[in-house]
Amino acid sequence: MSALRITAVTVTPVALKDPPLLNSSGVHEPFALRSIVEVHTDAGISGISEAYGDDATLALLHRAGSNLTGVDVFDLNELSRRVAVAVSGIAASAPTELIGAASGDKTVAQAVAAFEVACFDVQGKATGRRVVDLLGGAVRERVDFSAYLFYKWAEHPGAPGGAGYWDGEADAWGAALDPDGIVKQARRMVELYGFRSLKLKGGVFAPEEEIEAVRALRREFPDRPVRLDPNANWTVETSLRVAEALAGELEYLEDPTPGIPGMAEVAAKTSLPLATNMCVTGFAEIPEAVRLGAVQVILSDHHFWGGFRATHALAGICQTFGLGLSMHSNTHLGISLAAMAQIAAATPNLTYALDTHTPWKWESEDVVLGGGLAFVDGAVTLPGGPGLGVELDRDAVARLHEQYVTCGVRRRDDVGWMRRVDPEWTGERPRF
Amino acid sequence: MSALRITAVTVTPVALKDPPLLNSSGVHEPFALRSIVEVHTDAGISGISEAYGDDATLALLHRAGSNLTGVDVFDLNELSRRVAVAVSGIAASAPTELIGAASGDKTVAQAVAAFEVACFDVQGKATGRRVVDLLGGAVRERVDFSAYLFYKWAEHPGAPGGAGYWDGEADAWGAALDPDGIVKQARRMVELYGFRSLKLKGGVFAPEEEIEAVRALRREFPDRPVRLDPNANWTVETSLRVAEALAGELEYLEDPTPGIPGMAEVAAKTSLPLATNMCVTGFAEIPEAVRLGAVQVILSDHHFWGGFRATHALAGICQTFGLGLSMHSNTHLGISLAAMAQIAAATPNLTYALDTHTPWKWESEDVVLGGGLAFVDGAVTLPGGPGLGVELDRDAVARLHEQYVTCGVRRRDDVGWMRRVDPEWTGERPRF
Repeated sequence: MSALRITAVTVTPVALKDPPLLNSSGVHEPFALRSIVEVHTDAGISGISEAYGDDATLALLHRAGSNLTGVDVFDLNELSRRVAVAVSGIAASAPTELIGAASGDKTVAQAVAAFEVACFDVQGKATGRRVVDLLGGAVRERVDFSAYLFYKWAEHPGAPGGAGYWDGEADAWGAALDPDGIVKQARRMVELYGFRSLKLKGGVFAPEEEIEAVRALRREFPDRPVRLDPNANWTVETSLRVAEALAGELEYLEDPTPGIPGMAEVAAKTSLPLATNMCVTGFAEIPEAVRLGAVQVILSDHHFWGGFRATHALAGICQTFGLGLSMHSNTHLGISLAAMAQIAAATPNLTYALDTHTPWKWESEDVVLGGGLAFVDGAVTLPGGPGLGVELDRDAVARLHEQYVTCGVRRRDDVGWMRRVDPEWTGERPRF
Repeated sequence: MSALRITAVTVTPVALKDPPLLNSSGVHEPFALRSIVEVHTDAGISGISEAYGDDATLALLHRAGSNLTGVDVFDLNELSRRVAVAVSGIAASAPTELIGAASGDKTVAQAVAAFEVACFDVQGKATGRRVVDLLGGAVRERVDFSAYLFYKWAEHPGAPGGAGYWDGEADAWGAALDPDGIVKQARRMVELYGFRSLKLKGGVFAPEEEIEAVRALRREFPDRPVRLDPNANWTVETSLRVAEALAGELEYLEDPTPGIPGMAEVAAKTSLPLATNMCVTGFAEIPEAVRLGAVQVILSDHHFWGGFRATHALAGICQTFGLGLSMHSNTHLGISLAAMAQIAAATPNLTYALDTHTPWKWESEDVVLGGGLAFVDGAVTLPGGPGLGVELDRDAVARLHEQYVTCGVRRRDDVGWMRRVDPEWTGERPRF
């Protein structure tokens, strides 16, 4: 095989409808942004991937992408080098504060990831191999995901039909603002997708209410592990109070409190495993976390850790230092779902069910043909085709791009939308 | 591409002449053992690799290899799983005590490595890609090696022409038993190969003599970094005395003293970076070494760390925890040389010149066509061909296999050969 050199990259921002999901920052806006990345090569083969879609990420991807012409899609080290050179002048920024502090390394990692995944897709198509095969082979053909439960309103605050809103159409899920609402949501989600583990996004209401919600979930689904993620919205003291209340009830407690030292304080006094995708979201943060024993599980996410190879580097570290490995999700479409499944299937020690926002997506809204991989019993089966195994639905991309153009949202701002309800809202943590 | 399934594996032991190189265990015997591993597939493509050749390793490779039929050469996770299952009953053993304590994990890693490298060779041949491309791309097309200097005798003790000896023929290097001899050896090696960094195998004579040898090398080659490796033959006190004497003179000091706690004691009191391929030779040993700050450089070696992917996992750990990464060598042939160059070229943070025993090999003795990659200015240029880029010379394999059959050596025993000179010799460390 001769070189497969990149001739051009395309970055297409899209917007998808997003329900009013509540978290410690505020509330999801009516639209979430993603970008569809295409890498074109001189062999006529193109690869795809999916990234964040906010203005800063788009600028990053355009700048990085403009420096990739001529790179062989197998030369991922050169890809990383080119990206690092191209974005060295860009100010570090994170697409959401919910994945930790921004850094120059993380900014590079984010751009590398977007293009690396597309290069693996090309590699797979060129060799007739699934991405999972190029990553060392599938240790499982079915990848388990967890039901990602959210407190939510029935509708976004603000006038339906108003600017940036979806013409009065409510999402299919209704409100969930107490334990009963969460259990009802979980029932529906388990019924529709078959998830065999549950995750509750917390940090929204008083911890006692969220403890009750977890207990209600445990009563309703005694055989399903439950995780709770308050997104660093608790003090150390509150975290310890909740940890004591829920010891034995949770699979893990995710980011109860901000920062590695705070997490370490909590970890020292509870038997409950602590997980994170906030205080350790880049390699530079690992040594301190290991030294202080701050976390027991790290949530990978190829989108911001730097791609598939970086995810394997993280997996090697977790294996070596006795840390568990799980996977984080932001709002995403079907390309990311396929990418998450491919890398997870190639990672033996990724033993937790993956997070996914898929159920919160309108079924009619995806960018891949067929609407994305299907869930059966809470798992997706790896597609048999080469590369990522999913193909772009160009009509759908055009539709969601048009929605991007008209929706007006250009960066994720859960804090700002919450201010429509509570003008004093700051989203500052910890609140409890 | 359809699956490339393993149909059979071949393991051929070979023996090569080995000069009387001295180390802390004793002296190299007149023959060193290697094994040539071939992985055959249903596509008619075979891949090669090279491993240790002692009886225990041969038993390990035969047992592991017998369980690989049907494995897709891309499915390296399945390869690892099959190897682990096959060798679970084998007692842990290390091919030499100079690479640290044996463990079950390391035994598995050694067998995985032997077959994984051959699978990558098949992958490369099937896709028309160099192994370095399949490992993420070449960050350098030329890979630097260091001159591996040894104290040595002119001839092996024992009657030339006697059992297990090579008919009275001496090696081309003569004796090196003092600073002058080492400098003379270095001059010749640099002249022949162009090496731009130097490594002295120490732990043989009194530390003061070895300090003088390093100083003599520094005077003779002021622009070439020098390393010293006494193979854990010094106490903590001796190590600190040498470290003080050679601070500023050495690129790093390798395994001055046995064990992680001892190394940590030395590391705490010297600014000289400490390197190891003895106290950290498997992933399980890394956490303690990191916690205690015992080493600043880890020597990789795909042969015992578990192959190319494991080497990348190690590289990720070194990068993350601020450790340097170098590469260890045992006596080897041209397949291993190519493999070492391929993985090194794909590893950005492998910034030290690699160790190699190539100069100690008779030029007439290799198992690859053309006699192995050539050194120019101390570096080998990655071959352009697919896979590892080297091909078996089957006549040479047959010759060296015949030599294996007749030489009688079946396991490396530097201690035993030294006893011919000193019947009281035990090889116990630390001796100084």
